[in-house]
Amino acid sequence: MSTQHWKEIVAQKRQQRTESIPKEWILTNLPSQDTLNVIDFPESCGLLTELDIQITNTEVTLLLEKLAQGTWSAVEVTTAFAKRAIIAQQLVNCLTEIFVDKALARAAELDAHLKTTGKVVGPLHGLPISLKDQINVKGVDSTMGYVSWAFKPATKNAVLADILEANGAVLYVKTNIPQTLMWGETFNHVFGRTTNPYNRNLTSGGSSGGEGALVALKGCPIGVGSDIGGSVRIPSAFNGVYGLRGSYGRIPYGGCVNSLEGQDSILSVLGPLSNSIGGLKVFVKSVVDQKPWFVDPLAVRKPWNEEEYQLIEHGKGEKLCFGILWDDGITKPHPPVIRGLEETKKALLAAGHQVVDWKPLNHGEFYKAAGSIWSAAAAEDFRVSSAPTGEPVIETMDLSYEDVDAPPTESIPLFRPNPNGISSYELWQVQRRKRDLRQEYLDHWNATAVVTDTGRPVDAIISPCAAYVAPPHGMNKSAVYTTIWNVLDYVALVVPTGKFVDPVLDAPRPPHEFYSSVDKENYEFYKPETFKDAPITIQVVGRTLEEEAVIGMAEIVDAALKAYSPKL
Amino acid sequence: MSTQHWKEIVAQKRQQRTESIPKEWILTNLPSQDTLNVIDFPESCGLLTELDIQITNTEVTLLLEKLAQGTWSAVEVTTAFAKRAIIAQQLVNCLTEIFVDKALARAAELDAHLKTTGKVVGPLHGLPISLKDQINVKGVDSTMGYVSWAFKPATKNAVLADILEANGAVLYVKTNIPQTLMWGETFNHVFGRTTNPYNRNLTSGGSSGGEGALVALKGCPIGVGSDIGGSVRIPSAFNGVYGLRGSYGRIPYGGCVNSLEGQDSILSVLGPLSNSIGGLKVFVKSVVDQKPWFVDPLAVRKPWNEEEYQLIEHGKGEKLCFGILWDDGITKPHPPVIRGLEETKKALLAAGHQVVDWKPLNHGEFYKAAGSIWSAAAAEDFRVSSAPTGEPVIETMDLSYEDVDAPPTESIPLFRPNPNGISSYELWQVQRRKRDLRQEYLDHWNATAVVTDTGRPVDAIISPCAAYVAPPHGMNKSAVYTTIWNVLDYVALVVPTGKFVDPVLDAPRPPHEFYSSVDKENYEFYKPETFKDAPITIQVVGRTLEEEAVIGMAEIVDAALKAYSPKL
Repeated sequence: MSTQHWKEIVAQKRQQRTESIPKEWILTNLPSQDTLNVIDFPESCGLLTELDIQITNTEVTLLLEKLAQGTWSAVEVTTAFAKRAIIAQQLVNCLTEIFVDKALARAAELDAHLKTTGKVVGPLHGLPISLKDQINVKGVDSTMGYVSWAFKPATKNAVLADILEANGAVLYVKTNIPQTLMWGETFNHVFGRTTNPYNRNLTSGGSSGGEGALVALKGCPIGVGSDIGGSVRIPSAFNGVYGLRGSYGRIPYGGCVNSLEGQDSILSVLGPLSNSIGGLKVFVKSVVDQKPWFVDPLAVRKPWNEEEYQLIEHGKGEKLCFGILWDDGITKPHPPVIRGLEETKKALLAAGHQVVDWKPLNHGEFYKAAGSIWSAAAAEDFRVSSAPTGEPVIETMDLSYEDVDAPPTESIPLFRPNPNGISSYELWQVQRRKRDLRQEYLDHWNATAVVTDTGRPVDAIISPCAAYVAPPHGMNKSAVYTTIWNVLDYVALVVPTGKFVDPVLDAPRPPHEFYSSVDKENYEFYKPETFKDAPITIQVVGRTLEEEAVIGMAEIVDAALKAYSPKL
Repeated sequence: MSTQHWKEIVAQKRQQRTESIPKEWILTNLPSQDTLNVIDFPESCGLLTELDIQITNTEVTLLLEKLAQGTWSAVEVTTAFAKRAIIAQQLVNCLTEIFVDKALARAAELDAHLKTTGKVVGPLHGLPISLKDQINVKGVDSTMGYVSWAFKPATKNAVLADILEANGAVLYVKTNIPQTLMWGETFNHVFGRTTNPYNRNLTSGGSSGGEGALVALKGCPIGVGSDIGGSVRIPSAFNGVYGLRGSYGRIPYGGCVNSLEGQDSILSVLGPLSNSIGGLKVFVKSVVDQKPWFVDPLAVRKPWNEEEYQLIEHGKGEKLCFGILWDDGITKPHPPVIRGLEETKKALLAAGHQVVDWKPLNHGEFYKAAGSIWSAAAAEDFRVSSAPTGEPVIETMDLSYEDVDAPPTESIPLFRPNPNGISSYELWQVQRRKRDLRQEYLDHWNATAVVTDTGRPVDAIISPCAAYVAPPHGMNKSAVYTTIWNVLDYVALVVPTGKFVDPVLDAPRPPHEFYSSVDKENYEFYKPETFKDAPITIQVVGRTLEEEAVIGMAEIVDAALKAYSPKL
């Protein structure tokens, strides 16, 4: 037990963070807390130059070209994103660690290298990339929201951080998470809560909530999160950005800190968030091209497969058949979510693709299995991690909890650990059933070949990201729509539809026949004004280790959505 | 609980097996049990025709050509191997299920197809393949040595059985295993013990002991075993045949029965045994070419990679650097095993390759971790599986145990389950440590780049298969030399050196400084006459999911051994 009270450590840690912000970037004209939608504030606040704004609004692929050509220097690009990230921090509290000085020094080295040799260091030359707090960067803390882990800087980089740096990326900030990572929202005692830039009364999601909010505010071109049950995709969805959950081991996880360490059954994966699919693609390809399996024993030996990206196995992408999951048989999605699916269907049909209904199979049982497996020993894991300073384990994401001395409001956590754990034999029986469920689901997928015009089974599934768009703090209570794909180890990519909650288009619908009291509660929970301005997104889901093809198909879906309903 | 005594079920099951043998293939001139080496008996016993002998002695790749050309019909080839398998059964008791009639009917269909269309059904057209008992074949029992599982025929094929049949293979027999599969020898109450055809006082190894003995006697051209801690490689080694342990999920495991189901940390894999590397290669390539990941959710999406087979990443195989593991720091191998390594070293040097010493790292800790993970709930697993008929769980592979009513001799099992199991949290801690051990080992491997002439880390490791060649029944008490590669998930391929125990060349050596009492006991255990005629083999070990390159490098090792010391 530490001799200091844990709140003293928190105070010191927050002080350290404040001091790490360049003084000249501290804003005095911040909007009041009543201003809910702050998405446009960075460009109007006066801190960013025209060039900063131009750089931070440039799509990743083009940005990399400009960096490689020397049109924009790495120092210019790093400065622009760092400034915008610091603005984001002051708006939605999305950062944990800030090391701009180091980043600018690195950027200057990259510029010198390009000038001297005429060559880029790698495919990400000069690109700032933000990392979720748990990804170790040498010399920087990875508290993961635990007070007990503060002031223990990492002694070396995670494998991914090394690879990104070798590829020329510039690391400059780490982003906020919930304590334990096992929540779909972002709050911890050390750094507080990350809010949603489209509506600060709403959650940014979690556990990669800091990344989701930062990418939405264009404080980074690519951010890296992790996803065990939706932790990349929930923040991508709630903040309206692109995000990829690849299969176990496709992106190297080695050298990160984590919860539930030693749990070998449903693995967390690292994955990118970005404002374009191009950002996701260049991230995956450039990381995989570094052959991470040579340095990380859990990284899968599968080189980037260009044929898979070209959709050779999917009829070259010329005519695809998508299966739309309208609801999972547990919770019917809210009107904006349904509108997102409907718009996607129309867009795909207009682009000449086929769309069929996707029937859910045992989604509830999958979710229960995931909960049983993670909770088998989670309570002990959390106790051990939080114990050294006596910090309590957080039991709700409710706002009321922020006064930790007040009795917490009743709240159903996303994931409630079994306080006593279970035996290894019981655990094996759940894991065995999970394996059988995966086989049944694959058979179910393959059986769709009879309903498609392509002769193939459905090429990809279009799925909601949750039964709702970004909900108010403390109200993200179910992750069935994301966790199902983790348990199946399917590749899932979040695509924003470009739509936002609209009180007219998304008026409440008449009650349906409820699956359960949970479904009924979810129905009653919906009021358009509660979800004002929240982005509407979908998931594109493909088979295990099919990252290339899912990226290729998501590009088709994205283009179809943009063509069907062009933005001004 | 069954109303029948379990011994009655055993009697019925054995009767069924006897009746499944074609009467005309029952031999009356079997050698007496005093005849230890029966490896040449099949060709001298009089049952096989000249053609049968020619077919069963033909290397797999050539055999497939002759089948494809119609030189030999599938019926001829199936008949030859089936006869030889039945001879093998009468010599060493290697079979559990025999279905020759079905096989010949299938072979006749294949012949008709070839005649009618001029085309083969697939790359394994007409090739008989034997399967370890646990691999489900529709209509046939998979008892896995449990009395309780007898007379419960499988309702459908395992994924692999389907793929082999789609490739044109002919299934005709299943092979013997130890009860639970978690032994390095082969004995169970249902089918009894499989002995070693080179010396019937010695074990055939396990758990794929039936396969090892059958392949050695050329009763099949390719057999399929499974390997969680050495179960393909121990029988390959003890019976002097080639055998491959690929990485988790490279060969589809779906639809097999198994022990320790739901254990998701150190997975069992299926793998081929054969009399040539060509047999292993055609098996892996033809199975992977069927894209098993479309039908088995645990099969890895990694197509056959011809560039990896061509050793592009290993300098095109022109000059390789091998690391030789002389001993693992726990048990120093016996003289014949050391001679095998020495001969391999000389052969590789003569072929122009580099050879350095491979330093073991934490092999004992890896082995202990594997034991802790498997035993976390194994006792309960075994109890549940054996309970319905009241059959005891076997606790020793000693000969004395075959009279199950006599008190068993004291014997240390390979794998002793923890009778009470452990909690999930304890299990996670072991699994976490195992992950860290894997990282340390990979770093250790990569660090060898400084000692090679190639600029690369060591290309492959040459390792003993065990500290001894095939030992007497009940004496295979450690599997550290194989299990280490399972925990690391490295690809390991057994290559026979073509040498056998020789009382002069393999005379006992003076005592060394013993690592422990286990090492001392192992030293004292060695007498050349105990191991008379036992084959000498090595393992070629490569990185995770590097099946193609390991096959390519093993071909180089095999060719070097044959060139250095040509057989007459």
